[in-house]
This record gives sequence, structure tokens and C-alpha cells, in this order.
Amino acid sequence: MGKRVIVIGGGIIGASVAWHLARRGAEVTVLSAGPGPASGATFGWINASFYLDEAHFRLRQAGMAAWHRLEAVAGQGLVDWCGCLNWEEPDPAETARRLSGLGYAIRQLPGTELRVREPRLAGLSDTALHAPEEGIVEGAEAVARLLAGSGGVVLSGVKVSALLAEKGRVSAIDTNAGRFEADHVVLAAGTETAALLAPLGIELPMLQRPGMVLRTRPVEKVLSHIIVAPGQELRQDAAGRLVASTVGKHQEDRADRIAERPDLAAEATLARIAALLPGVDLELESVTLANRPMPADERPVIGAVGPEGLTVAVMHSGVTLAAILGELVAAEVMTGADDPLLRPYRPSRLIA
Amino acid sequence: MGKRVIVIGGGIIGASVAWHLARRGAEVTVLSAGPGPASGATFGWINASFYLDEAHFRLRQAGMAAWHRLEAVAGQGLVDWCGCLNWEEPDPAETARRLSGLGYAIRQLPGTELRVREPRLAGLSDTALHAPEEGIVEGAEAVARLLAGSGGVVLSGVKVSALLAEKGRVSAIDTNAGRFEADHVVLAAGTETAALLAPLGIELPMLQRPGMVLRTRPVEKVLSHIIVAPGQELRQDAAGRLVASTVGKHQEDRADRIAERPDLAAEATLARIAALLPGVDLELESVTLANRPMPADERPVIGAVGPEGLTVAVMHSGVTLAAILGELVAAEVMTGADDPLLRPYRPSRLIA
Repeated sequence: MGKRVIVIGGGIIGASVAWHLARRGAEVTVLSAGPGPASGATFGWINASFYLDEAHFRLRQAGMAAWHRLEAVAGQGLVDWCGCLNWEEPDPAETARRLSGLGYAIRQLPGTELRVREPRLAGLSDTALHAPEEGIVEGAEAVARLLAGSGGVVLSGVKVSALLAEKGRVSAIDTNAGRFEADHVVLAAGTETAALLAPLGIELPMLQRPGMVLRTRPVEKVLSHIIVAPGQELRQDAAGRLVASTVGKHQEDRADRIAERPDLAAEATLARIAALLPGVDLELESVTLANRPMPADERPVIGAVGPEGLTVAVMHSGVTLAAILGELVAAEVMTGADDPLLRPYRPSRLIA
Repeated sequence: MGKRVIVIGGGIIGASVAWHLARRGAEVTVLSAGPGPASGATFGWINASFYLDEAHFRLRQAGMAAWHRLEAVAGQGLVDWCGCLNWEEPDPAETARRLSGLGYAIRQLPGTELRVREPRLAGLSDTALHAPEEGIVEGAEAVARLLAGSGGVVLSGVKVSALLAEKGRVSAIDTNAGRFEADHVVLAAGTETAALLAPLGIELPMLQRPGMVLRTRPVEKVLSHIIVAPGQELRQDAAGRLVASTVGKHQEDRADRIAERPDLAAEATLARIAALLPGVDLELESVTLANRPMPADERPVIGAVGPEGLTVAVMHSGVTLAAILGELVAAEVMTGADDPLLRPYRPSRLIA
């Protein structure tokens, strides 16, 4: 019998970890507290152009490469590699120089080329940054595909009540649906992770980082790239919906609450989109609020914690990092590998 | 400005109520606590062949008719009217006689015809009941379509913290995302309904009725009807997945817990399906646990409760009843209509 691994969390990180564990021969059970796959509330942008330090850039860059490897084995079409056009940067030349220096595919695009690439957009800048290798993952669809492809048992509506250890080693978990024995537990429960660790005496400090994703009803194809205009991230999904991301505090992503009531924030977002896309008839379809799983120093938390056999994996951006994290966590769980990419992200830096 | 109605609950009942309210000119806001549409955990069967008394039968029968009306205006394809074959009934002749007497489309089918209709099924009975007018709703898809078509504002990830009243009338609700003023509130929050009413001093007694819906990976088309074999409800979805319903206590649907651990119950269910469909290669895709929203006397709870301007709508089976409830609740909210179909289901019978 293979190693019995329970993955707690049915979002994009849990799904990718489960997929990679299954490929390595583990007997995987994924427990999701909600009624189905999570990660439906993400804007879905895969990039390494936003990062906190060089190690974080390298991890995100590895994350982009890992999505290509995952697509090659799990099926094409998980990612829409549409590239990004960004004219929000205050100093695009400096940003392009810095990212190019790190080996990132990015260049400045003159306004003329910008207009050719996105003829429907108004309010364009004279220059924009083009990151041709960035892409979009539809979170809920990717989760469903990875979980279905994992070959593991996926149980939704199962809430964990306790992680049990015997002689310093994880032995089982208790849930609302009975006790599950396990050789290893991977905790990838996003914003719920800290609450699940607390009864073990492990205090994982997390930040409140609410975000909002707005979707319009489908319209004709009006966008070909991820758009980062001043104050507005925007893309179009395969069905034609415009998808916009709004954060608590505009352009900072650091607020602990959404400043406005979400329906009012959505109205303001629709007005910004209307200014970018004149002549497009915009109607709101849905608005989803969610907290990002953001550890206290804004960096991923990945690795062993507490009793032997317990691994935690919680981070923002889950979408950019899911594929590489799946590879690395599965390797650690199954072989004890210790990848240098993960060293800056060990739980010990935050846990007393 | 139209009447501002807030619908709390993003499941099939909330979605249908919102859709019908919007058609009547209300300004509708739907608040859903989860990250997206609910009702993904239902088997999805529309029928009136199971009922508690004649009034309940009439309501369910009206529920079936209302789905046809809803499809005519909201778009075809919401329901797969595939009909049901049932050979679980201990006395099919008596059941057929009783349901026919109520005006229900049902007849006994000889084994020969059964084998023609479902050639892949093994273990068939000599006789089965055929209810040609029953159908299937894919819960999550129907919710998404109705919400998108409602024209209302749909906010997910919004948790209600308090229902506020002024001078005996609903005035607003508080949420994790701010305060929303309202002329009327419809509480369609399923199993969460009682907890939302409690702070108003309203105690709505509910039962625990856990159920499990299992989905296999897609297989070739092997079923054309909803199947009710002894001990197993089964259907096939449009993608080819076999979808099975399992309840806490086999054949009774009355247990307050699932007897087995869900992965073991799923194994047993797969074994039963394998016996029904020899030669079909079955692999588990997902298992979803959920509690049915079941009031203490097993009947729907629909109507005004507490302060003026508050309407509650909680019931099992939400799928069968969603379309008719949407019509009737929207009419009550907008015109004060009092439909005789709803009289047996007023909250007052359960609330002291």
C-alpha cells in the first residue's frame, strides 16, 4: 500500500499538491470544507513581474515554468498564455530594465503598437510594458481538472475538527465525517490554515487582505491581453466576461478591509472599465469577495511544522505558485527532498 | 426606484426567487456566503412521486409545471426531462394506482420494455414504474444561469451578521462587507437559515439530514433515465459522469449522520453501481457531503416571519420546488398575494 496522504484544502494549491502526490504513487485523499472546488475568487494572473525580493522572483519565475510542465502532462488549456500589457508603472523604462536584468521577458511597447494589439481600448498610454509570457488560470476550472486528474479521492463538505498525533507523528485527522488515518497530512487550507494549526499550539500569523473579483455578462471579444491600466486590472474570459480585480486599498493591496460596500465598489469598477472600453455595453454578472491567504510577512509558508508528517503550504499568489508548489511539496512528502527554492519560506521564520 | 429586495442565500431557491423578483421590477441584491453559487451538492431530481401528504404532492406537482414555465422564459435546457425508472417500490401496482389517481403521469413497465429502454442495466426487475415527466436539474449550473439572468447584483463571500428592524419593519442588514438597506429581505439560506433568525428571537427547528452525492469520471453513455434501483439512485450527467445519491440511513433518508466514513460509503456505492452496469469501468471523481435544509416536520417553511418585510423560504427538495417557490414568493413580496398552495407551509406552525 502506498503512503496515505491527506490534503486538507480543495483550492488550487491543494489540487496541485494532490495531483503531483498521486503521480508519485501516494494514496491521496483531498478534503474540502466547502461544497466543491475553491479558488473561484481569484483574478487568475500568473506572473513574476510583481515580487518582494529576488528569491521571491525566482520562485514565481519557477512557478511560471512549472505551469508549462503541468500542462504538458495534465492537459493543454489549463492556462491562457495571453500575455500582459501594463501601463500602470510610474517608471516603465526602469521596470523593464530591472525585470530584463533578472531574465524576465518584458519590453516597452510604443503607443502605436499598443493600439494595434488592443484596438478597443481607450485612454492608452504612450508606452506600456508587454510581458508576453504571463497568463491566466481560471481557478475553479483548473482545480476541478487537477482534482479529477489526480486519481485521488476528493471529498467535499468535510470539515476537519482535529489533527491527531501519536509519539510526535501525525496519525489521523478527525472530521465531521469520521476519522481518517494518514501517514502524512498536507495543510493547504488557505485562510483557514491558522485556525487548523492553533489547537496544536502552533500560531501562524496571517494578514487580512480582502479582495474582490467582478465579472460582467459576456460581451463580444474586446481584449486580447491581461490589462493593467492605472487603477484597474482587467481581462476577458473564454465566455466573453470581463473580469476585474479590485483590492481593499487602491493600488496598494495592503488594506485589511474593502473600503467601500462591494456593490458600490463594483459600480465604480464598472465605470472605470467603461472608460477603458467605450461603446461596450457592460452589465454586472457577479462580484466575489475573498480574503487572500497572506502570511504575516507576505511570503509563502511552506514546509514541515509541528509533529512529524505534517506539511503546511499557504500563500498568495496561489495561482502563480500552484504548479511549482505541487511539484516541490510532493517531492518533500514522498522523498524528503529539501529544495533550495523553498528555504526562504519555511514556517519556522514566523512560528515561535 | 423599485422595491429594494435583498435575497440572503445563493442556492437554487435564492436564485429562483431573485430571478422572479427581478422580472416583477424589484431591485434585487443576492448575498451568498460562499465563494460562488451553492446547490452543487444535490442529486438534482425533479419529481412529485415522493411526497408527505396530498397538499405536499400538489405543491411538488406545481413545482414541476413551474420549471416548464421557467424554461420557456429563462431559456431551454435548464432541465433534462429524461424521466425516471423506478423498481425500488415494494408494491409498484399500488404506487402506480395511487399516483395515477392523483393525476400523475406514471405507469408500470414490463421487464421487456425496461430492457429496451436501458439495455446496459443488469439486475433489472420484471416490472418497473416509469414516470416520464420527471427530470434533472444540475444545481450549480441552474443557479449560475438564474443569477446571471436575474439582472440583480450578485455578491458572493458576503456573510450576514444581523438583520436590522426599525419600528417593527426590516430596514437593513449588516454584513462583513458593510450595511445594506432594504425594503424587504428574503431569507433563503438553507441550513444556515435558523442561525440567521435566532438573534431576532425566532427559533426555527430544523433536522439534521446529511446526504452524499458521488460522481464518477465520465464514461460512454450508458443510462437514459433517472434510475431508482433498490438501494441506489443513479443518473448520468451531460458530460457522462454517473451521479449517485447516498443518504445517511439506507432507503430511509432519516438518519442524522452518514453511517459510514464518506470514502468507504463511496466505495460501497461504486460497488452497487458496478453491479447495475457490468462492463463499465468506474472511477470515482468526487464525493460531496451536505445537509439538506429540512425543517422539523420535513415540510417547506415559506412566508412572513418576525418583523414586517422579512420572508423566509427554506425547504427540501429545493430542486423540485425552486421554480414554483420563486414565482410565489416573488408575488407575495411584490403584491402581498397569499397563495393557497403555500398555506400549509407558513412558519407559524413551527415557531412559538
